Amino acid sequence: MNYTAHINVMPLKELLDPQGKAVSSSLHNLGLTQVQDVRIGKHITLSLSASSIEEANGMVQEACKKLLANQVMEAFDFTLVEG
Amino acid sequence: MNYTAHINVMPLKELLDPQGKAVSSSLHNLGLTQVQDVRIGKHITLSLSASSIEEANGMVQEACKKLLANQVMEAFDFTLVEG
Repeated sequence: MNYTAHINVMPLKELLDPQGKAVSSSLHNLGLTQVQDVRIGKHITLSLSASSIEEANGMVQEACKKLLANQVMEAFDFTLVEG
Repeated sequence: MNYTAHINVMPLKELLDPQGKAVSSSLHNLGLTQVQDVRIGKHITLSLSASSIEEANGMVQEACKKLLANQVMEAFDFTLVEG
């Protein structure tokens, strides 16, 4: 069975996000002054084959913990869909 | 009223994604050989104040087109929630 995982990896709320701050001031300079806060992370789509959704879930967890997210500075969440 | 936009900016399907390819082979090296395809883009959360959801929607569209996404190489989509 094929599954697709949509993973978001975001900087932790407690930490400063310099990229987000830079984008926020650029948006203000472009006239979008009602923008208050911007945070920027990664969005990863990953397609994989697994025998069950539980196995797929375990694989995505492993991929996030071992490679995709640096858990000292980032948090991840994902949704898993068939197909 | 405050709104939060969750924006995904992804490389177009027609284009090669070298970062995704690199992550895909790293995952294979880590033993996750059932991973087939990886694509990596940006996830942006943007909080803004607007008088209506339509106005907020327009502002997020403008932010994406003017700054957040390079529409030659990337596609964006977003969801908008209150609060």
